Amino acid sequence: MTDMRVAVVGATGAVGRTMVRILEERGFPLDELVPLASERTAGTRLSFKGEERTVGLLTPDALAGVDIALSSCGSSVAKTWIPAAAANGTVCIDNSSAFRMDPDAELVIPEINGDALDADPKIIATPNCTIITTLMAVAPLHRAAGLRSLIVSSYQSVSGAGQKGVRELAEQVEKLHGMEEELGRSVDVDSLPVGEVFGKTIAYNVVAKIDVFDEESGETFEETKMRREAQRILRSPDLDIAATCVRVPVPVGHSVSVYATFARAISPDEARDVLATAPGVELRDDPANDVYPSPLEAAGRDETLVGRIRRPIGHEDALWLFACGDNLRKGAALNAIQTAEAVLARR
Amino acid sequence: MTDMRVAVVGATGAVGRTMVRILEERGFPLDELVPLASERTAGTRLSFKGEERTVGLLTPDALAGVDIALSSCGSSVAKTWIPAAAANGTVCIDNSSAFRMDPDAELVIPEINGDALDADPKIIATPNCTIITTLMAVAPLHRAAGLRSLIVSSYQSVSGAGQKGVRELAEQVEKLHGMEEELGRSVDVDSLPVGEVFGKTIAYNVVAKIDVFDEESGETFEETKMRREAQRILRSPDLDIAATCVRVPVPVGHSVSVYATFARAISPDEARDVLATAPGVELRDDPANDVYPSPLEAAGRDETLVGRIRRPIGHEDALWLFACGDNLRKGAALNAIQTAEAVLARR
Repeated sequence: MTDMRVAVVGATGAVGRTMVRILEERGFPLDELVPLASERTAGTRLSFKGEERTVGLLTPDALAGVDIALSSCGSSVAKTWIPAAAANGTVCIDNSSAFRMDPDAELVIPEINGDALDADPKIIATPNCTIITTLMAVAPLHRAAGLRSLIVSSYQSVSGAGQKGVRELAEQVEKLHGMEEELGRSVDVDSLPVGEVFGKTIAYNVVAKIDVFDEESGETFEETKMRREAQRILRSPDLDIAATCVRVPVPVGHSVSVYATFARAISPDEARDVLATAPGVELRDDPANDVYPSPLEAAGRDETLVGRIRRPIGHEDALWLFACGDNLRKGAALNAIQTAEAVLARR
Repeated sequence: MTDMRVAVVGATGAVGRTMVRILEERGFPLDELVPLASERTAGTRLSFKGEERTVGLLTPDALAGVDIALSSCGSSVAKTWIPAAAANGTVCIDNSSAFRMDPDAELVIPEINGDALDADPKIIATPNCTIITTLMAVAPLHRAAGLRSLIVSSYQSVSGAGQKGVRELAEQVEKLHGMEEELGRSVDVDSLPVGEVFGKTIAYNVVAKIDVFDEESGETFEETKMRREAQRILRSPDLDIAATCVRVPVPVGHSVSVYATFARAISPDEARDVLATAPGVELRDDPANDVYPSPLEAAGRDETLVGRIRRPIGHEDALWLFACGDNLRKGAALNAIQTAEAVLARR
């Protein structure tokens, strides 16, 4: 067997750094790590298994002979290099939205539709972070009782917009901390700090817009992605799913409040039994002992935390639940690396 | 006409202070303000119309001759004095949950069911802050198209738990600010600050539990109140309503993500037309110009801000919307004072 060369494209970003950390944590079977980035950050040093590496510039040559490329760059950049790299035989596992709906690519959460890897695709997309958190909780219930509809409201962390999102939150907290009481009175909204990332003040606020608006439907692209990707991953093109996506001032950890209906009756106890043994899920659901998930508890963890499972009054075929996942790990980097592991396991 | 004496019970709390401020702002027709509080804070000085007042101790004698008592104390305290005061002819407008479901009291949002005041009730409850924000947006649509079901996920501010909630957030931000990046890694959750109010860290987190759990159903009392109070205010005892209530690190301003279904088809344009002229509502819904509501914009405002109105794909009879209201003003103090104004208008 020849040497296993693994590239991390976008190695200096929030997800890229997490990818490098997780490759090390999990002892991923690689012989050479090839960290790459754009001109802006190429040349940066990073540490891997106790050694300093210099991040190289993303070019076609840099990808020559790479077996697996884990990518976390923007969609437009991803489109410039992935098709050629894939044609050269590199398995490209991409975190952007560029290939998620591409019929020649696969969209994979290994615990849910890992069998999509059986056909040995060369381009594999990692889904949107919020639909990963949602489906990690819901897909096991779908297998048990047949999902009919999903109504989701999200509580998404600022790191979903990268390190610059975390910085924008921290900078605004720096300006507004100490004013918590005044913020409740008739504050002049125009005097509040607004950054480039979130469009509105994100510190001490919630922002009900993620990605761009479709002006005609009023839906944001984040909400559109939730629907399309869920339908594709669950292979249910007619799945009735609707989402409202909201940014909250949390550094890492996306949460979803989910109202799901099923083809047959399913009790909260049955749902807990199903989720207790679901891979990648940690059940945190014990109201008597005040146990339920929160995003700070999910941050840094591989598992999606699920709780608040209960039956809406009068609906035997419906369940409420609340799930939290680390959007940089399972929502992005970890899912990509688990996908790479599943690819290798099939060889 | 004799002098109009108006008491504010719980005058030193977050809602009580807001009541005093709003009475002054609106030029409420009173001759004497009687600010009252429990032993813990009686004796505090507060300013009203440029004069300093001393907050008196809440006793039956202190309420003698009071025409209207605006109350914001806990439920258990409210039950100790309101029945006697009401029997003495004082109109008691109470912000606690003590009388909201009491058949001898009325539960009123003046813009929605102000006609409940026609019978001259002596005990009037102001609803839960989150259902006020929800119904201010939804009730006009209910009148237009007949509400069938409501699925609500909330984003509730810390001031919903009073001034101590705002302090707890500020204290935790003081400890955690500067650690925003670390909070995304494998933080030892046990090392995070946890206060007495929220049960979990509220800074940089969201907490999916408000009020106590009903251990059997898994529902929180906040979620139960949402359902019961909506059914009572809309006089729809069978209204299908389900809520998940979540605390977010916002000082003032409750937000709700609402999925509503109706008895007949209703388009987003029709909904916008209805809400554009609904009293107490300000439409903020213009995706093309990036206009949508946020809680910081609602804080200090009387109007409930409504936006993100759109049709879930495939559901002509359903609408998504996102609404934000000042939980101390319309969610509590303002609603109580508007109720008092409506009582006086009926005399």
